[in-house]
Amino acid sequence: MQRLIWAIIAAFAVTFVLGPIMIPWLKKLKFGQTIYDLGPQSHMKKQGTPTMGGLIFAPGALVVGVALSKGGAGSVYLWMILVSALGFGAIGFVDDFIKVHLKRHEGLTPKQKLVPQIILSIGLAVWAYLTPSVGSSWTIPFVNAEWNLGVLYIPVMVFVLVGTVNSANLLDGLDGLLAGCSMIDFITMMLIAFTMSLADEGNRGNLLNTAIFAAAMAGSLMCFLRFNGYPARVFMGDVGSFFIGGTLVGMAMVTKLSLLLPIIAITMFVSSLSDIIQVSYFKYTKKKTGEGKRVFKMAPLHHHFELSGIPETRVVTSYYLVTAALCLLTMLGFVA
Amino acid sequence: MQRLIWAIIAAFAVTFVLGPIMIPWLKKLKFGQTIYDLGPQSHMKKQGTPTMGGLIFAPGALVVGVALSKGGAGSVYLWMILVSALGFGAIGFVDDFIKVHLKRHEGLTPKQKLVPQIILSIGLAVWAYLTPSVGSSWTIPFVNAEWNLGVLYIPVMVFVLVGTVNSANLLDGLDGLLAGCSMIDFITMMLIAFTMSLADEGNRGNLLNTAIFAAAMAGSLMCFLRFNGYPARVFMGDVGSFFIGGTLVGMAMVTKLSLLLPIIAITMFVSSLSDIIQVSYFKYTKKKTGEGKRVFKMAPLHHHFELSGIPETRVVTSYYLVTAALCLLTMLGFVA
Repeated sequence: MQRLIWAIIAAFAVTFVLGPIMIPWLKKLKFGQTIYDLGPQSHMKKQGTPTMGGLIFAPGALVVGVALSKGGAGSVYLWMILVSALGFGAIGFVDDFIKVHLKRHEGLTPKQKLVPQIILSIGLAVWAYLTPSVGSSWTIPFVNAEWNLGVLYIPVMVFVLVGTVNSANLLDGLDGLLAGCSMIDFITMMLIAFTMSLADEGNRGNLLNTAIFAAAMAGSLMCFLRFNGYPARVFMGDVGSFFIGGTLVGMAMVTKLSLLLPIIAITMFVSSLSDIIQVSYFKYTKKKTGEGKRVFKMAPLHHHFELSGIPETRVVTSYYLVTAALCLLTMLGFVA
Repeated sequence: MQRLIWAIIAAFAVTFVLGPIMIPWLKKLKFGQTIYDLGPQSHMKKQGTPTMGGLIFAPGALVVGVALSKGGAGSVYLWMILVSALGFGAIGFVDDFIKVHLKRHEGLTPKQKLVPQIILSIGLAVWAYLTPSVGSSWTIPFVNAEWNLGVLYIPVMVFVLVGTVNSANLLDGLDGLLAGCSMIDFITMMLIAFTMSLADEGNRGNLLNTAIFAAAMAGSLMCFLRFNGYPARVFMGDVGSFFIGGTLVGMAMVTKLSLLLPIIAITMFVSSLSDIIQVSYFKYTKKKTGEGKRVFKMAPLHHHFELSGIPETRVVTSYYLVTAALCLLTMLGFVA
């Protein structure tokens, strides 16, 4: 437990030092985000804020997560999480780089993003499937049962991986929103993995390393909120949101807790869902009546709340609280 | 541990229900705060926001903290904390009520507030002194030693009680500031008291009840942030800040951890200190040169930061982070 606290503090410290160094640098490199045309009008004032802030918090999490890990047999989970985090993070980096450097507003096309994501996900899912301590089953939370998906594990896990990472990306729309919600998720993951490690002697090293990396992520993001909270001085960019999504889903995959994701990461889930509902309903009504209709004033859902007149900071606080409440309920299933 | 999580969730739920009922009621009763003339100019827009929000979060903490407590021998700590919380809260209530109802802007005079505070504190300090499991010594954190103050315990503890409660009151100057900082403090108190309960068989009930009440406070304040975070829909008022201060210092008193207060509640400590420095320096220079000079643009320190051009929300986030970092460091001294 002390090691976990050290991980939080150490990652916090690294990010604390990196932030003030990186922000002017990101700004100078003209990495100021060109605000998405389709966002709320009030967001235009955010033009010029530097982006790619993922580069500020990722190093602290990676360095501390690896440095404090325990080597030996129990490192395969950590490797899988690292590949997921760095792989998805790299895709986000390329997207940001094209947007910012080539000034091509949209970055990669959806297909150009999706193909490498799927390839990476297949690799990860197969790796997990073939790893004895992960395998093809999911734990069903709260009822202490396992659900063996057999070879179906691979396509389903690919869907979960791609879905989570893109949901994290969608949630990254308001100052401090994704950083704060995922910080709560990582604290939860840390506590769950740590609790699991106490009960599972044979797999203790793997689970402890997972908990330590989750602690490092939480510490790093906690400090990042200093720069990313309202009013944000830096955005995390796709490199940040994909890195967060990749880390979170990687941890869920190795601990077999993918079924927890719609609960602890409900804000990500809802962002995707609202987007899908919005687009589908628009297409359906367009086809049916010739005129496309919308369910929400704007998708994802946080923009709908904003346009309904709720101040940005209050939407963010509410999202934090929903996350915290559901994470607490989830933890009831794990602690004695 | 499960009981602690339940306490957080239950208190959260009570406040979640109370908030939307109480806010319009507080507004209707014309409990809108008359903003302090001496605050920053930008705060004038906050005129009309209802106050006495302490009445929203206190019930959840009290009901849940008492309902989930374990009766029997181990309830003297809980009683002491309750007397401290309700006693100081009542003084705050009277102050708010005079301000709001009688429209007497300043509420009670400093002396009218201080006298009942001191009387209450003497009662609490003597009670603690005479209680065998509390006694006259303080734990020196991190070095595993005790410091026996003898009969001096009483005046020193009175100073700590009055000082902490008024410091909490001073910190309550920006949206979500005191609620968030003290929420982090109560989570820390919960974890520390719980850890202490594991090691101290003879005093387990008392320490567990303390942890449960801290959990209830944390849950209730967490939800209160939904209403009190920027932009605040309700202020907590003196009833809120005195209740928080009274609870926190009561917990420190019974666990003998008063020496931790300047660390985990550093933001309160600094608020008082900056106020004292400001006033003393002004008086000193006035006497010396005939013209009073100031160290800070405005005291307490958070107003200085605000007037230095840092956005309110960023000051608040920074205060949270400093609190979180120091609480984490403190916990290193308690967990294995």
